[in-house]
Order: sequence, then structure tokens, then C-alpha cells
Amino acid sequence: MALAKKPVNGMKDILPEEMQVRDYVMGVIKETYRSFGFTPIETPCMENIGNLSNKQGGENEKLIFKVLKRGEKLNLEAAQTEEDVVDFGMRYDLTVPLARFYSNNSNRLPAPFKALQMGNVWRADRPQRGRYRQFMQCDIDILGEPSNLAEIELILATTTTLGRIGFKNFQIRINERRILKAMAAYSGFPEESYDTVFIILDKMDKIGLEGVAEELEKSGFGKGEIEKYLGLFRTMEDKKDVAEGVSWLAGQLGDFLEEEVAANLREIAACVENTKEAEFDLVFDPTLVRGMSYYTGTIFEIAMPEFGGSCGGGGRYDKMVGKFTGNDVPACGFSIGFERIILLLLESGFQVPGQSEKVAYLIEKNYPGDKLAQVTAQAQQERKAGKQVLVARMNKNKKFQKEKLAAEGYTEIKEFFNRD
Amino acid sequence: MALAKKPVNGMKDILPEEMQVRDYVMGVIKETYRSFGFTPIETPCMENIGNLSNKQGGENEKLIFKVLKRGEKLNLEAAQTEEDVVDFGMRYDLTVPLARFYSNNSNRLPAPFKALQMGNVWRADRPQRGRYRQFMQCDIDILGEPSNLAEIELILATTTTLGRIGFKNFQIRINERRILKAMAAYSGFPEESYDTVFIILDKMDKIGLEGVAEELEKSGFGKGEIEKYLGLFRTMEDKKDVAEGVSWLAGQLGDFLEEEVAANLREIAACVENTKEAEFDLVFDPTLVRGMSYYTGTIFEIAMPEFGGSCGGGGRYDKMVGKFTGNDVPACGFSIGFERIILLLLESGFQVPGQSEKVAYLIEKNYPGDKLAQVTAQAQQERKAGKQVLVARMNKNKKFQKEKLAAEGYTEIKEFFNRD
Repeated sequence: MALAKKPVNGMKDILPEEMQVRDYVMGVIKETYRSFGFTPIETPCMENIGNLSNKQGGENEKLIFKVLKRGEKLNLEAAQTEEDVVDFGMRYDLTVPLARFYSNNSNRLPAPFKALQMGNVWRADRPQRGRYRQFMQCDIDILGEPSNLAEIELILATTTTLGRIGFKNFQIRINERRILKAMAAYSGFPEESYDTVFIILDKMDKIGLEGVAEELEKSGFGKGEIEKYLGLFRTMEDKKDVAEGVSWLAGQLGDFLEEEVAANLREIAACVENTKEAEFDLVFDPTLVRGMSYYTGTIFEIAMPEFGGSCGGGGRYDKMVGKFTGNDVPACGFSIGFERIILLLLESGFQVPGQSEKVAYLIEKNYPGDKLAQVTAQAQQERKAGKQVLVARMNKNKKFQKEKLAAEGYTEIKEFFNRD
Repeated sequence: MALAKKPVNGMKDILPEEMQVRDYVMGVIKETYRSFGFTPIETPCMENIGNLSNKQGGENEKLIFKVLKRGEKLNLEAAQTEEDVVDFGMRYDLTVPLARFYSNNSNRLPAPFKALQMGNVWRADRPQRGRYRQFMQCDIDILGEPSNLAEIELILATTTTLGRIGFKNFQIRINERRILKAMAAYSGFPEESYDTVFIILDKMDKIGLEGVAEELEKSGFGKGEIEKYLGLFRTMEDKKDVAEGVSWLAGQLGDFLEEEVAANLREIAACVENTKEAEFDLVFDPTLVRGMSYYTGTIFEIAMPEFGGSCGGGGRYDKMVGKFTGNDVPACGFSIGFERIILLLLESGFQVPGQSEKVAYLIEKNYPGDKLAQVTAQAQQERKAGKQVLVARMNKNKKFQKEKLAAEGYTEIKEFFNRD
């Protein structure tokens, strides 16, 4: 039987040039996050299917790759539904597995626990250009820290990392779930319709204020509520500064907004501005919604000028661990859109810094064994001295071989002939 | 619904202490292999199920985690067999995916192509202590190199890596599929029974010469053949030196063994001995079989005194790429038993070298925001200076918190009080 040469539909092979950039970026990420006290952990790529289908993951739950039961557990003839034939599923993010990990191991973990996860996730999306069904996620999370120290550390660690990779002039947009709710309440929308309102608000980037107004009207909301709501956003368009924007809004919303929410955001902004290493702007964005239904407080997102959409984001999710243990644990996380970062670097012709010198040894065919042993020893000496040494047979078409090696970055080529 | 706290059956969560060792070892592996000219690549964790079920993988093919079809492709009601409901499977090793990768991308790869793969594989084994159903493999392979330069580079790269991780006094055992066959032919076993003979021979480690003799007899082989066969092994027990053992055996086997096989092994041994950096012995082991049916020539294995079984191995598989492309490509690989290496290191109390100093900042509750901004900036300065700085809230039970931090390796703890 002929075998398939292509990867499975929607997934990709990663070639040496891309891997080199990925490895470099992963190295910077690990080193920087470690300096902030984050420790790497890993969970299995599969989870029990029940953990993945509990409504925490929103739309992603429709995209799970499910794993067939094995052996006696599998009874295909009696099977009525998918639930009968699967037991595990591939994780679609790293947050649900982290909450499970924490529930399973909390007595062996420090408090607060600062976790770094870099791992693949799978989503059975319709394959499309630049989006793959297996992709790397890179998350940092702080569990057990109720105060805004979590947000401050997450934003500083993530932006420092992005800066050290070479990104600048990006934005971190910040908002709060409780601000979203207070604005909706202040405007007079009924509480049960908030989700509908936020889904429409989330399109602001694409359809603008007028578009949002139209869609809210179409959904049957009253003109008065819509006008009051959009009035807030209109005024805030030139109040991107967190302290200014939040203070103004708190004044408007009055009792609809808990006092600590505004103070909390102002404190985050002050610490980030005073400490930041990378060149970026922290901006208040009251239109920021973020889809995942598990967020309970602060939410944030990375926006890059080079890239239309978001390059990562996160927020506070204080209620998720409780789904596993019955006891809530404060939690907050920030995820870098690893694949988008890599795409941006590759498209910009990024060169990995600090590459070691590459030397190729070409050995003529039938080069005698005793002399070969001297050549391999010589190669080992050069490797010890920090060089990257390839030992390979000389091809018949040596000219072509040398041209190819030069193109691969080999700056020195040594040839070894039988007659030497 | 209550969620499951445990990982899926047979897989494990990896905690910070183990991850630190894993990350360190992965770093040494990548750096050392890169100095030998190996370039990292990655393939998706899933393959088309047909690629995994083509008899190349031997017993492992019975252990595949299979992935359920999705959407319209899935028709559970009409399904008769597993083949009807699955399309992908989780890879059970990195060799089959590599052959597919090479077939798919060879025109964009150097020749010879030296690949490094570090990735998870999955096998639905019965769960048992120390063996997991998801585990990391770490393979190097050279494709397109027909000569023994491939074997030499693979053995040198692997042993240099093991040495730099800190292992010594280990063995690399080497043999050749063609020697196995020649010995069986010389002894008079019929060709169609070679596989049966080799499966029994493979147990030599456990049951000894007499055990092998008994089992061969039970399987119905003649006393004369068995005696002749075992006589070879008896004599060779004190001929572990590759050059000596291979030469003696070549003399015995005469025309049963192609001349180049012995010369080839002697040349590998000479180059390895003259070049090796790690402290290990290269020994000729005519009882070495290795299970995978895809091997065609040299085979080798790592044996550690600290660990009963094998800690990795590999060999030449010149016929696998041809299953994808129709054209054979010479190929040879060496896999480190990553999980066993990690287990040995953890059990020996291995300490990761070169750890940076760990400092903890403890901030009293309600510490004022403007002063907090100065503290976070101070932490950032220490991080820039190479320290690992944790910024956390001070707990009510500060004494316990500080004891825990000390146990986690924090050598300096700075406290920040509101009254300061």
C-alpha cells in the first residue's frame, strides 16, 4: 500500500529554518519567564473527555479531536453516540489542563504557584492559510494570588519577553469584566442580555461604533439604552491612558462600578509604566471583551501594529479551579500567541543571533579507515571549540554540494582526499 | 458535574522539580547535537492511520491511540469496524513520521540530511510503574548517507551528549542484521525460521545460553544446528572488542558473511575509539537483535550499569523511505531513552548546574500603589542582573511562607511593609 507523504490535513511539518527561529524564541521565553519566578510544568496532551466538555472552553469544545476507546471498553456495535466510543480528547488549550494539574498537585506546589507551559494544543478547525489544527501555546499563570500583583507580574513578564525577542511599539490593551458589566447595567440593558451585548461589542474593531449601534438595534435593544451605551465609548475614544480613562469612567458609572475595580486598574498601570523594559503602550480599552467564558476580572490582549489581530492575551479566572476541587482559587494567566509571533518573525526575515560558525568536512569515497579516525577526532576538537561541524561524504558533483553547503551557512569547507 | 483531577490513565503530570531536570537535559542534547550538524525538525503528533498501520512498527501498531473522525465523515450507525470511524492516529515513534517528513520535503532539505527530533509519542500499553503511555523520544537520524560515516557520527554525537549530561562507564553494544543472518545460516537454520530464532536469541540477557538452547529445542530446531549456533556465542563471550570479535567471527562464517560487513564494523570502531569524548566502551554483541522489523544493517544499543535494560538504541533502516516514495534512501538513526535517562538522574539526586540566584520579595497586604511601583522596578533591575526574582504577597503566616521559600531554594528574602 502506498503511504501518504503529506501531514494529516490541517497540520504541518516544521522545517529546519523555522525550527531554528522557534527554538530561539522558546529559549528567550523560558529564560525571561524563569527570571520572574515562573517554573515550567507539563500535562499530558490528552485529557478525560469530561474535563474538556464542561462548557468552560466555549466554542473550542466543538473542535475537540476525540480519542477512540481501546480493547474491551470499545463496543462499536452497541454504540449510539460519540460519547459511547471515546474516553479521551486532545486538549484545546493549556488553561483547563492547568486547573486540573493544580487541583491534582496543589499540596506539592508553592503558593502562589507561577507556572510556565509551552505545549501543543489541537483544534479541529476548518483548515485555512496560516491557521493549523495543531499549534503551540505559551502560557504563564499565577495561581493563589488574589491581588493585582498577579496582573502586574504577568504583564511585565510577557512584555519583557516580547521586547527581548525584538518586538516594540506594540500595545497591551486592558479591561475588566466588571467594567463591561457596569457599563451595560448603567446603560439599562437587562442582565440576562449582557452576553449578547458583549458579543456585538466585541466586533467594534471591525464594524466601528455605528456598526455596533446597528447590530444592537437589530437584536431588539432600545434606542435609549444603545445611545447611552455608545455615548460612553465615544467619550472614551480619546481617553486611552488607563488612569485617566478609568477615573473618568468610574465617575460616570457611580454605584454601578465597585470602587476597588478602578483603583486596581490604576495600580496595575502605575507599576507597569514605572517598571516596563520593552517599548509598548498600556492602554485602557473598554471595548475589549475576550471570548472565553471563564474570565472573572481583569482581561488583557496584545496588539501588534504589524499584525491585524491579537497576538495573545489573558485575564483573571478565579472560578475555574473550584470546578475541580469545590474550592475556588484565585488565578490569572497570560498567553503569547506563539505561532503568530513566529509568523511575524519569519515574514520579517528574522536572523537568529549568536549562531556558531559552521564548518563542513567532505570525505572522499573509500577514504581509508585509519585516516578517517584522525579526521573524526579533528572534527571533535573543533566542536569542543564551539564550532558546528558536519562530516559528510563528498558527492560526485562536488561543486553543487559545496554551493548548497554555502547556502546553508557553512562558511568553511575542508576536503579530505584518499591521495592526501 | 465533578471533573477528574487525575491525568488520564497511564499518563502523568510533570512537576517543576522534574521539569527543571528535563529542560536542562534537553538543552544539553540540543546544543551537543547541533555541534554535530543535526538540525531540529518537527512533525505533527498525529499521522494518517494508514501510515501507522503498515507493519513497519511491529508490536507498537497494536498500541495506537486512534482519533475519531469528525463531522460528516463520521457515521457511527453504519460503522462496522474501527477503520470506519477513525482517520488519524497518535504516532508511536518518531521514525515513521521522519520517513514521511523526508518523503514530503526532501527537495527542500540538505543531503545528507541530519535531523534531530525531540517529541512525545503515545502507546496504549497496560499502565505500569515507571512506564507511561505518553513519553518523550529523542532521536537523531541521518538520511542520504550510505556509508558508515552515518553510524560513526550517530554514535559519537549520542555518546558525547550522554557524557556531557554526566553519564560514564556505559556501553554501546553494536551488531549487524547481516551478521545475525549469517550466523543463523552458518548454523543451518532454514531462512524462513530466522525471525523465530532471533526472538529467542533476544532473550539471552535474561535466560542465558542454556535458556536459549532449551527454547530453540522446544521450538523444534535440531540439536546439531543449536549446538553449532551456541558454540559461536560461547567462543565470543570473551571477544567483546569489536575488531577482535568481528574478525574472528568473519573467519568462522566464511562465505556466509559478506566481506564488507566486518570491515565496516571495524572502521566504525576505530573511528569511535579514536574520537570519543565520553567514558564508555564500544562492544561487539552478536546477541543484540532489536525488535523493530525495519532495520536492515548496523544495530546498536546503550546499556547503563545503573539501569537493567537498554537506555536507547538505533540502527540502519535503508528501506523505509522507499515505502513512501518508491525510491529507497539510506537512513540510520539513534534514539536516546529520554525518560529512562531522566529517571536515572532524578533517582541519583541530580542537581541542575548553573542555577541563578533566587530572591523573593514579600509585599505586605495593602502596600500602597505608588510605593509598589518602586518595588516592581527594583525587582526588574535584579532580574536584569541575572537573578530570579519572585514578587508575592506576604501571607498571614509569614514564618511558614519563608520556610517554604527557603526550601524552594530562595536564598534571599526581602520584606516590604506598609509602614516602611
